[in-house]
Amino acid sequence: MNSRVNVAVVGATGAVGQAMIETLLRRKFPYTSLKLLASKRSAGTTVMVGHTPNVVEEATPASFDDVDIALFSAGGDVSLQLAPEAVKRGALVIDNTSAYRMHPEVPLVVPEVNANALWTNKGIIANPNCSTIQMMVALYPIYKAYGIKRIVVSTYQAASGAGARAIDDLLHTAKQYLANEPMQASTLPVSKLKKHYPLAFNVLPQIDVFEENGYTKEEMKMVNETHKIFADDTIQVTPTAARVPVIYGHSESVYVETKEPFVLSDVLQLLQTAPGVIVQDNPQEQLYPQAIVAAGQLEVFVGRIRKDLYVDNGLSMWVVSDNILKGAAWNAIQIAELWLSQAGHR
Amino acid sequence: MNSRVNVAVVGATGAVGQAMIETLLRRKFPYTSLKLLASKRSAGTTVMVGHTPNVVEEATPASFDDVDIALFSAGGDVSLQLAPEAVKRGALVIDNTSAYRMHPEVPLVVPEVNANALWTNKGIIANPNCSTIQMMVALYPIYKAYGIKRIVVSTYQAASGAGARAIDDLLHTAKQYLANEPMQASTLPVSKLKKHYPLAFNVLPQIDVFEENGYTKEEMKMVNETHKIFADDTIQVTPTAARVPVIYGHSESVYVETKEPFVLSDVLQLLQTAPGVIVQDNPQEQLYPQAIVAAGQLEVFVGRIRKDLYVDNGLSMWVVSDNILKGAAWNAIQIAELWLSQAGHR
Repeated sequence: MNSRVNVAVVGATGAVGQAMIETLLRRKFPYTSLKLLASKRSAGTTVMVGHTPNVVEEATPASFDDVDIALFSAGGDVSLQLAPEAVKRGALVIDNTSAYRMHPEVPLVVPEVNANALWTNKGIIANPNCSTIQMMVALYPIYKAYGIKRIVVSTYQAASGAGARAIDDLLHTAKQYLANEPMQASTLPVSKLKKHYPLAFNVLPQIDVFEENGYTKEEMKMVNETHKIFADDTIQVTPTAARVPVIYGHSESVYVETKEPFVLSDVLQLLQTAPGVIVQDNPQEQLYPQAIVAAGQLEVFVGRIRKDLYVDNGLSMWVVSDNILKGAAWNAIQIAELWLSQAGHR
Repeated sequence: MNSRVNVAVVGATGAVGQAMIETLLRRKFPYTSLKLLASKRSAGTTVMVGHTPNVVEEATPASFDDVDIALFSAGGDVSLQLAPEAVKRGALVIDNTSAYRMHPEVPLVVPEVNANALWTNKGIIANPNCSTIQMMVALYPIYKAYGIKRIVVSTYQAASGAGARAIDDLLHTAKQYLANEPMQASTLPVSKLKKHYPLAFNVLPQIDVFEENGYTKEEMKMVNETHKIFADDTIQVTPTAARVPVIYGHSESVYVETKEPFVLSDVLQLLQTAPGVIVQDNPQEQLYPQAIVAAGQLEVFVGRIRKDLYVDNGLSMWVVSDNILKGAAWNAIQIAELWLSQAGHR
């Protein structure tokens, strides 16, 4: 790669695409050009890049001529169709969909955890699922120091994880409730399924479709992606994924059992010095991570860190991060930054 | 006890007190007279009993002359002060506060689980904590059949659990958010503590005050009350209690490890025939318990029942109930009904 860096955002009109554009600007990402792409349906839309209006073009194979880094977030189908075309034309694809995550030749990267996996790529790097990323960042220091035998995680996920229409669905049903009108949902829990339930003042224990084994696809992502990112299939993951009436910021109640014994103060210190982690843990001051505080931030916030009352190697904690940023856009751009910073040396 | 049943509700102006009155009517509870009592501050308030306005009197020791059943829900201090006075005057006290729950001579009763404990009372029967009650009802059939080694539970608790002011706090901050105004909380997470955080579009991982061990009082209730209700101190409980922007209905993500192996279809059948339980579990039809559906109902709803992917005796489920009804008012009145139905035979 020479010093020219042409970047394309595929899915520029979506919630994550918008956040990608904002994060590129916020990070002063040194792009030479920025091309905004989307499906035919959204092509022609004007999107602001800082204070400059840009017209979104339809993504086609030819769109990727001269593109160096292509950030995909337009759904799995678009990635399956166009990521290989982008790779063929010499682009590095960083794909935020689940299309390639479990592909054996595609690295699944959380920069704080497995940055090195990045260099084995064959043109496509996958961005993990939002709920997995923040858990990985919080658990990796513990995994490195003590090993992890098992994880029991319950998520409190924000509407934005299901896209801009899901945010509208939450706000709409909330307004209806407060106006004493019957709530009418049109998107959540899964837009493509038949039944839609209000999220306002409710909790929905379904994220994505159900699999044969009774777990949702979202829950199985947390199992499979944890194994791939830590490169360790022995970790026993017990996930429950639920959607709560929050707009930005996934919260997670994480119970973890380590292989080796730990001292709680050591765990605290590990987390305090871990990259990408901010510890917010002071019960006496009522300090703990909160979704509305984490929203807009790039880090993963960890608190409520406490030893289990019964299990020697057991530990509970509360992990919160902005699902659109570290859970999607920022993790992708972090990968791009890493790629750029190393590209000259390889 | 003769056929006369004079009932008093102490804390008649609170969220639970109101629900107690409504539930007495809904159940056609055969009271001879109904006396509404409250602290001095709330005395003089008019409260509707069906279509009849009743004036709330100040609760004093003499208020309990001629009272047969006194339902207390006016805070622990009031119970500590006045429950013994009511007992002295011959009343059976059913106390919804935490004041007597762990007292060795006070039975802690969930009728579906340990109805027999009721008969050892010395005048006071304690109603367990809301988040514990619904978990007990859902787990008891499993406990009886297979034994329980451990429980990892994460709660998604409704604002109403913190009283009527907390509901106002949630609605108020929600309205502010939707009007693009800064959210200003005044009650949650714990009214008597200094810091208040908005619950609207947020999750608060604090219910009640923190204890020395890093767990909240709410979390420790789930541990200690589980032990007392099941009369089994060996169960390893790992609790995380969080408040979500819901008005009525606690949801719980419950992972349980049994002592003996089970077959999943047997567990389903046990739950389907368990008293007080309604199974809502059909992933293909997107059927699972939801807070807004459970609100106003007396039962405990259980769904998302699935075997652990790794642990042989592991099982996850989603448990939802109306925290003000089965979690408080209805459980108390259920105890009173049980008492009445048996009183003639003892």
